[in-house]
Amino acid sequence: MSLALDPAAQDLLFREARTANTFTDDPVTDDQIEAIYDLVKYGPTSMNQQPLRIVLVRSAEARERLGEHMSEGNRKKTAAAPLVAVLAADNEFHEELPSQFPHFPQAKSLFAERAVRERSAKLNALLQVGYFIIGVRAAGLAAGPMTGFDAEGIDKEFFSDGEHSVLVVVNIGRPGENAWFTRSPRLAYAQVVTTV
Amino acid sequence: MSLALDPAAQDLLFREARTANTFTDDPVTDDQIEAIYDLVKYGPTSMNQQPLRIVLVRSAEARERLGEHMSEGNRKKTAAAPLVAVLAADNEFHEELPSQFPHFPQAKSLFAERAVRERSAKLNALLQVGYFIIGVRAAGLAAGPMTGFDAEGIDKEFFSDGEHSVLVVVNIGRPGENAWFTRSPRLAYAQVVTTV
Repeated sequence: MSLALDPAAQDLLFREARTANTFTDDPVTDDQIEAIYDLVKYGPTSMNQQPLRIVLVRSAEARERLGEHMSEGNRKKTAAAPLVAVLAADNEFHEELPSQFPHFPQAKSLFAERAVRERSAKLNALLQVGYFIIGVRAAGLAAGPMTGFDAEGIDKEFFSDGEHSVLVVVNIGRPGENAWFTRSPRLAYAQVVTTV
Repeated sequence: MSLALDPAAQDLLFREARTANTFTDDPVTDDQIEAIYDLVKYGPTSMNQQPLRIVLVRSAEARERLGEHMSEGNRKKTAAAPLVAVLAADNEFHEELPSQFPHFPQAKSLFAERAVRERSAKLNALLQVGYFIIGVRAAGLAAGPMTGFDAEGIDKEFFSDGEHSVLVVVNIGRPGENAWFTRSPRLAYAQVVTTV
């Protein structure tokens, strides 16, 4: 069974793409991130909520502040990556619904309760994190997504409004020397998929 | 700024791909789903957790059972789609870690607490839902992801072990007549991305 997506693209996005643990010194530019965003912004979210927000951590000072909240095992590679993206859910995404989902003007009112919109922001922003990781690879770059950090610390440090929840931190760059561990196995189809 | 991914693949996966609301009668085969899985299984998860589980709802009887838990607005299209995939997090994913993350034998013990592994299962399975939606498009098919349903009802109906949490339900097929609404706008780069 062959896919419609051509094999080179399959390799670039999935089969040969790997989580990088080291990077070269080549910079990652804002133009590259903008090109990635302009592709993955089309990925679907419930009611077009688009709750993902991205903080690009570039300056030495911001890098240091971020490092303090990363878990021990992630600190060194985060300091060394050409660019680090903090990916967070905007729990006030519903403010954008009147412009982003115009054919259903009542959409915003469905999210009057904070708990309801936090749940929806998290779910949809995580789908968008998945799209973003694919987008980094589409740009010919390697992504190093990490979930080991003090979330409350990052939220306070980088989102002073109290309305954002960090989800994943991603190192971005060109893979350096010994960038990969041996690829871990994957679950077999029959372990994952059942039919009823 | 151009991406490494060729423009036809960009269109297939993001720019021209749309959430389908109607489908043709063309069947979606198990072979197609297996080809999709064999591609997207390589998408990264924390410690290779791979918590996503997929139930393909094919039989009329199962379709009926699912329909009862879908929200009113989603019921008809779920009944009409050639194939419906229920995507869930396996909250017992840690049982697979000894085989899936063999170079760190203590991994499983990090998830002894149910609340810890539920949180991690949800986060990583949602990344995998993102990869899966891209994979459906890579197969030349349209996806119709939905979050409007009674989650507790679906969990009880389709996962009798009490260890799975449904996240997203996806209609899959070839787009039918009037399959798309007008594309909604997307947030501008400056509304989503900031640099520090």
